Amino acid sequence: MTLAFVNSPLDRADDVRRKPEILAQLQANPAARLVKVRGDQVAVVAGELDLAPDFSRSEQSFLGRDKTAAPWFACSADENSELLSLRNLMLGGTLSDESLSILAQARSLVHWHETHGFCAKCGAASRMEDGGYRRHCNTCKADHFPRTDPVVIIAVVRDSHVLLGRQASWNPGMYSALAGFMEPGETVEQAARREVFEESGIRVGNIRYLMSQPWPFPASLMIGLVGEALNDTIDISTNELQDARWFSFEEARQMQQGEHAEGFTASHSYAIAYHLVKVVVEG
Amino acid sequence: MTLAFVNSPLDRADDVRRKPEILAQLQANPAARLVKVRGDQVAVVAGELDLAPDFSRSEQSFLGRDKTAAPWFACSADENSELLSLRNLMLGGTLSDESLSILAQARSLVHWHETHGFCAKCGAASRMEDGGYRRHCNTCKADHFPRTDPVVIIAVVRDSHVLLGRQASWNPGMYSALAGFMEPGETVEQAARREVFEESGIRVGNIRYLMSQPWPFPASLMIGLVGEALNDTIDISTNELQDARWFSFEEARQMQQGEHAEGFTASHSYAIAYHLVKVVVEG
Repeated sequence: MTLAFVNSPLDRADDVRRKPEILAQLQANPAARLVKVRGDQVAVVAGELDLAPDFSRSEQSFLGRDKTAAPWFACSADENSELLSLRNLMLGGTLSDESLSILAQARSLVHWHETHGFCAKCGAASRMEDGGYRRHCNTCKADHFPRTDPVVIIAVVRDSHVLLGRQASWNPGMYSALAGFMEPGETVEQAARREVFEESGIRVGNIRYLMSQPWPFPASLMIGLVGEALNDTIDISTNELQDARWFSFEEARQMQQGEHAEGFTASHSYAIAYHLVKVVVEG
Repeated sequence: MTLAFVNSPLDRADDVRRKPEILAQLQANPAARLVKVRGDQVAVVAGELDLAPDFSRSEQSFLGRDKTAAPWFACSADENSELLSLRNLMLGGTLSDESLSILAQARSLVHWHETHGFCAKCGAASRMEDGGYRRHCNTCKADHFPRTDPVVIIAVVRDSHVLLGRQASWNPGMYSALAGFMEPGETVEQAARREVFEESGIRVGNIRYLMSQPWPFPASLMIGLVGEALNDTIDISTNELQDARWFSFEEARQMQQGEHAEGFTASHSYAIAYHLVKVVVEG
């Protein structure tokens, strides 16, 4: 029942990123571990993560060193690799959160390279630099850096009730905290108030930060908040959500325990929404 | 003495972004305001912001509606425009923070368009959609969204002292809170601990979130924290900083008031670092 992706054992050792000869030595180290990624899937061999190093691959991102000083890298998986989705690996519960946290870093970084092979400024092909933390365009000389997209997610409360919503694509009956991508020129608190109002017509007053979580689908930073509603009447006419409603703290507890009489359910405990609601209903 | 860029009066009215005919009507509205941006500069006429609408410009980003319902847009400034830097406008103190906040949104969004005219996935030219909140590639069909780059900034304390550092490029004697860009796969707290250790050799334990600020140079989200140091001895051998040192709360207060005996100074009160340190030294 713990938040996923927040326990990376790696020291990112950013001091070696700009030293290509050291990176090459680390890649050639037989103890090196190499995560192969394609989209939101990772390569496996006979059901186990395929972490075999491969010195021959040129575009490897350096993830860091583990507690045994073994260097970890990530790259794109071959076309013919056996693959398992990171989401299923997370839900399957067989991997430690340390492993999941490394896979999250690998997936976000490799996704960025997979979708940024060209310079957004001039359209020419770009190349990986700094162990995967920069791409450089030789044509227009622009540098590009990995994306991390901040998302606000908020449990809004009023009179011992919590505001939860659902998207049409979710499992039937599942409700979660409202969330949305931040935009240029906003504070965390402004973004949360905007998103909640857009999605539910509810105005939010005081806001408190609780925790954060990297969410590698593909590269979000979830910023977890609790807020106080200023009004009651929900309006979902913008159609961003299929439904939003107030659940009593007791109902929210039942949803998290899978015991709600009408079959409503909560988000998975791997996700930050679960923990925000848990903090709220437990006072 | 207030944090800049956090008081936008605009309702972003995201419901009209996907309605091109309504956007066209709003652009043609004589009450429309159009911010013209080039790099980190904005267009002025005779020293005043040039906000005249211009229906003829095709790539306009919709910023939102002000309290009079007037629509605000942003676009790239002409080559021959008279320009003033946003930084100097901020420091000059002649604009309201409401105006500065609108300029921050405009500058971050226009910068993204200026540097993302091509699809990073395939290299083809992309085009603006959704009132400036998406670019679409007709060749590979990829969608791209504006960047907001989260940065952790932290006032680290120990025994009534605060850890401040300086970069070689800053005004002589100026010291500020340590900060750095977040990376894929990190929590806010992990990123702050990593940055402080990389820059100063100090380990950070408990961390508390205080406030956030959009910082439009070009499109950062400053996440402001306070943390407790676990050790004393500073190590700047990574050369990320020119210097870092512990200042007593009394010294930090003097620096903020411009009264430090040795001439050390604090960051400007427009920046979040000033406010983090102020909270710390005032308890």
